[in-house]
Amino acid sequence: MSDITFIGGGSFGTALSVMLGKKGYSVNVWDRNQDVIHDINVKRENIKYMHNVVIPANVTAFYDLNEALDNSKIIVLSVPSHAIRDVCKKIKECISKDVVIVNIAKGIEESSLKRLSEVIEEEMPVNPVVVLSGPSHAEEVALDIPTTVVVTSKDMKCAKQIQDVFMTNKFRVYTNDDMVGVEIGGAVKNIIALAAGISDGSGYGDNTKAALMTRGMSEIIRIGIKLGAKPETFYGLTGMGDLIVTCTSMHSRNRKAGILIGKGYTVDEACNEVGMVVEGVKACRAFYKLKEKLNVTMPITDILYKVLFQDKEAKYGVYELMSRDKKDEVY
Amino acid sequence: MSDITFIGGGSFGTALSVMLGKKGYSVNVWDRNQDVIHDINVKRENIKYMHNVVIPANVTAFYDLNEALDNSKIIVLSVPSHAIRDVCKKIKECISKDVVIVNIAKGIEESSLKRLSEVIEEEMPVNPVVVLSGPSHAEEVALDIPTTVVVTSKDMKCAKQIQDVFMTNKFRVYTNDDMVGVEIGGAVKNIIALAAGISDGSGYGDNTKAALMTRGMSEIIRIGIKLGAKPETFYGLTGMGDLIVTCTSMHSRNRKAGILIGKGYTVDEACNEVGMVVEGVKACRAFYKLKEKLNVTMPITDILYKVLFQDKEAKYGVYELMSRDKKDEVY
Repeated sequence: MSDITFIGGGSFGTALSVMLGKKGYSVNVWDRNQDVIHDINVKRENIKYMHNVVIPANVTAFYDLNEALDNSKIIVLSVPSHAIRDVCKKIKECISKDVVIVNIAKGIEESSLKRLSEVIEEEMPVNPVVVLSGPSHAEEVALDIPTTVVVTSKDMKCAKQIQDVFMTNKFRVYTNDDMVGVEIGGAVKNIIALAAGISDGSGYGDNTKAALMTRGMSEIIRIGIKLGAKPETFYGLTGMGDLIVTCTSMHSRNRKAGILIGKGYTVDEACNEVGMVVEGVKACRAFYKLKEKLNVTMPITDILYKVLFQDKEAKYGVYELMSRDKKDEVY
Repeated sequence: MSDITFIGGGSFGTALSVMLGKKGYSVNVWDRNQDVIHDINVKRENIKYMHNVVIPANVTAFYDLNEALDNSKIIVLSVPSHAIRDVCKKIKECISKDVVIVNIAKGIEESSLKRLSEVIEEEMPVNPVVVLSGPSHAEEVALDIPTTVVVTSKDMKCAKQIQDVFMTNKFRVYTNDDMVGVEIGGAVKNIIALAAGISDGSGYGDNTKAALMTRGMSEIIRIGIKLGAKPETFYGLTGMGDLIVTCTSMHSRNRKAGILIGKGYTVDEACNEVGMVVEGVKACRAFYKLKEKLNVTMPITDILYKVLFQDKEAKYGVYELMSRDKKDEVY
């Protein structure tokens, strides 16, 4: 019996499984890619998603879902946001009711506009769901670079258990009971990061991007409050912290895709070049719908939507955002 | 008679004078450095502080203060924070009572712990004082890269006049009536940027720095509220926006000095290498005193103070900040 099973051997899932393996846990990783499984089990390295990081012997990868689940008491969902519901449908028949589901994907479901924890709860109404989020690029977590994240849940006792499991002296885990705020911050920041990347790629400067990020923060807060989040959550690690790291780090896929779009790539070309899922593209489409439905002002999402899906010129989009006819800062 | 006089031909002063010159204003620049004056007037370039930027013909530099003031109706104080009082003492005898003083320096006075606008008002109690602040690296302003800033004043009518003078389609000026918030945000962010630079220079990652900046934001807000600022100001351009640009841009002197300290330079060596005033060093000393006096928790300022002035090892300081024994995110 293993301690923890990761569903999805992508970069963040791999980084966390390495970390938990080093902490002494027995960790299983399920993936549908045979090469990834072979590389983890034989080469002790996830060459596709986490190059040059040694995977400890107590991490084992599986192609068979039932084998991977192996009576684990904690299941970590480390798949892209659009795969969450399917994955839940697959695992729900194979796990007991007390298994804790930890979600590390960021986004909302495009069809239902629901938060991912809501999707998980719909599929597995009895299992406790914990969300782990914060400024935590996988590449750095895997290298033991000091990182801070937040866990949240409707069941804070359960969140505290997950806090204890994941906490190390380099990976600091805090609790926050505002599940809506944590999830919305994590989802919308990818939209802002795409826009920030476009600003960088179009040749604008650090001044421009800082202004864009500041307004992005207002946009996150507006939609978040409308959905019932606590404003203070957005000023913390899962809001401002994650926004900063996603908009400024070279590790950020969303920023990278934005840079390419700013340089003239099409959206598809940019996503192909990045080679991993660019959550901001899906998030932009989803939040564009959600803001229309809830009547929330989200100018960056608006303009990004036009750039991504309606052939608006990227550079002009940034310029338009910067020159909006507003005179008072606070409004 | 000129329209505007800049006191100090440093990088930001020069960038703004170029911008206003291009807008058509007649601009004077006073400086005590004969080489700077010669370069501006003859070479049409401020080689020492703003390389490769052409200075328009309607910008003129002066060594004589009276000539420079030349009945200007707007005086921009573009000197380091520690020089503000001396400069005010010098100019107050030479200007009429309706001249508007615009301050672009960021910091507080070390001896009195007063905000710079308070210092200016003490010296020139009748002249209206406007503060201009925000994420605006001089190097980018000079290149017409889209930039946003805020003006604030006790006299908002006067702030709006300054808004009109400085506004261009690339340099967007907003108003905010929270003078305390704008000034405190601008001063404390230099402390956080020094710490962020130390984190970078010590080899920590983007995750680490994002966490540090997020906590830095809490620190700015705590001292700001204690001093009477409005919390929302800190989530705007002069708080979060300026914090982001100062902690992440390669143009930031405070960050550069921090990187060098993180790499093992002494404080003096780092400041000499940067070659311009590093406001964060002075701000750290001043806010260390102020937080003791007001009994405000500022852990980054605390630890930075020990690193800068009490030989605490820089890398260990960052580690200590990251591993504080705190479990809940919001406290």
